[in-house]
Amino acid sequence: MSLSRPPSGERAGVPGEAVERCRRLLEPALREAVAGLHPWSSRMAGYTLGWSDADGRPQAGDGGKGVRPALALLAAEAVGADAAAAVPGAVAVELVHAFSLAHDDIIDHDERRRHRAALWKAYGVGPALLTGDALLALAVAQLATAPEAMRLLSAALTELVHGQSTDMAFENRPWHGPHAVTLDEYTRMAAGKTGSLLGAAAALGVTLGGAPRELADLMWEMGRDLGVAFQITDDVLGIWGDPAVTGKPIHSDLRRDKKTLPVLCALAADGTAARDLSALLAAGLGDEDAIGAAARLVEEAGGRAHAQALADHHLAAALRALDTHLPHATELRALCTSLTTRTH
Amino acid sequence: MSLSRPPSGERAGVPGEAVERCRRLLEPALREAVAGLHPWSSRMAGYTLGWSDADGRPQAGDGGKGVRPALALLAAEAVGADAAAAVPGAVAVELVHAFSLAHDDIIDHDERRRHRAALWKAYGVGPALLTGDALLALAVAQLATAPEAMRLLSAALTELVHGQSTDMAFENRPWHGPHAVTLDEYTRMAAGKTGSLLGAAAALGVTLGGAPRELADLMWEMGRDLGVAFQITDDVLGIWGDPAVTGKPIHSDLRRDKKTLPVLCALAADGTAARDLSALLAAGLGDEDAIGAAARLVEEAGGRAHAQALADHHLAAALRALDTHLPHATELRALCTSLTTRTH
Repeated sequence: MSLSRPPSGERAGVPGEAVERCRRLLEPALREAVAGLHPWSSRMAGYTLGWSDADGRPQAGDGGKGVRPALALLAAEAVGADAAAAVPGAVAVELVHAFSLAHDDIIDHDERRRHRAALWKAYGVGPALLTGDALLALAVAQLATAPEAMRLLSAALTELVHGQSTDMAFENRPWHGPHAVTLDEYTRMAAGKTGSLLGAAAALGVTLGGAPRELADLMWEMGRDLGVAFQITDDVLGIWGDPAVTGKPIHSDLRRDKKTLPVLCALAADGTAARDLSALLAAGLGDEDAIGAAARLVEEAGGRAHAQALADHHLAAALRALDTHLPHATELRALCTSLTTRTH
Repeated sequence: MSLSRPPSGERAGVPGEAVERCRRLLEPALREAVAGLHPWSSRMAGYTLGWSDADGRPQAGDGGKGVRPALALLAAEAVGADAAAAVPGAVAVELVHAFSLAHDDIIDHDERRRHRAALWKAYGVGPALLTGDALLALAVAQLATAPEAMRLLSAALTELVHGQSTDMAFENRPWHGPHAVTLDEYTRMAAGKTGSLLGAAAALGVTLGGAPRELADLMWEMGRDLGVAFQITDDVLGIWGDPAVTGKPIHSDLRRDKKTLPVLCALAADGTAARDLSALLAAGLGDEDAIGAAARLVEEAGGRAHAQALADHHLAAALRALDTHLPHATELRALCTSLTTRTH
């Protein structure tokens, strides 16, 4: 059964073009919302959104991929609505994303983000923390009086924070034994931490586009699968991505014992490489040589290939949901596919 | 014109008893909500709410005054509803309050809170930050599908964060000259930082009790006045309160050049003490002797008396609003009055 109405106009467009079109629709509304913050927070928000440098000078910078708002806007179009209907949802998910990055970088002590100093590194922990709070409050304000939309945003917030807590708790878990993180636990963590906001974006898009709750809930699940695929891709790029392209330091996840999927998959394998990796992790990855060796062993043990296969599996599930319920959503489908073939 | 319906039952009770009765109504719902968090966050939330020590052992500790939930519950009763109707609002405002304390202590580097280590001091900045986020997400979830209530909670969040940003920006402002903080700016900051959540509490109480938006908006304004009076009382206790009672280090606001009202009032006065204070602040409060001398000069210049008069003025405005619109709300009135006569 397809719950979709025919789209208002089929567009062939490659995802880059669609995302760019969405960005042009989003940006005025996002800028207007951010302009309502306290001038201090507004300036810091402008920095973290890539609109200005740390001194507040306008900059045509890298404001991120704009994936979440694009998902919302294209989902609204996919149910036959004008994308404009979903703009408040698109603004809200982009603000929640910016909030989560501002706080995550403090939590993880990450000093770099999108080829620049992280917000806390540029302005200090206190101001960055408060800016994150301001972005979150602003996100909530976009949808406060739209209960169906607010239900989705609130669920995403709850799951996002739960997923982040799980991820943080993973760092204190061992690589081995009965308390080791399982692939299933990883999947649930990624579905929360990364999938919830993608799911909310797609669900908000169809909801604000006038679709029934049933379709919103299906899109929520679609987004969670997409999020797992997206997070696995992030994990892979965190080990083998080019720092010049990703904008993040190489091997930072390995350096802090983060339970990323390629490593979990490698350890779950049999063979010499898996055993050598296991011994290396047990001894602790003290220096760059050890970290580099660990990355090689993860690949040798099949961790990279297994992780990629799992990403493909979750992407396929997401695409099946789209093909079943929104079969004419060409651009939305292309956007989803692009998320796991990206290089940054 | 009074918009109130007759209260369900007049109670004479002193505020302590009413607050205790409200706490008994609040706590099961609050505990149930917190139990839904990630176990890590739940444990840290239990610590910050005074239910357990840092190792998670149950404790009959000081969980704070419970003023905000009591305001919400007594406001519902004041419009003739059962207090139970306002429990989701009471839970939400208490969670927002706990969120703001968790983040404020990180921002202000405050190491003590309610006679114990601050949350970040007990668990680290990252976990405390994330716990704050979890508390905020949980607050939003309480009211997500109740648009009238969510409108109030969202407005409170926006104003709360705006007020905190203003307060933070004040720390970089000079004590003198055209860029000095004015009494009017202080009042707006306090109305946001402290008044918005008190206003939301009272407004949520009457809203969830079935009153029209008109009364909610009047209670919102009532709470903002109450918040200004509350914040001034806090400022006064921050200088002259007994650390053994307040649970905070003495003179900490003076130590970090915080623009508190008694000091602003003292500087606005004429006379020797005001001029001496001015010179002392210009030279910088380097040691404990200088800080003690500054506190004495603030009092000598009339800063304490002026601040107290302004607190009384704002409390009177709040009480006038109550007497006009909810003339039978004896307990609510007593609670409001108690907020500016407290010692901690």
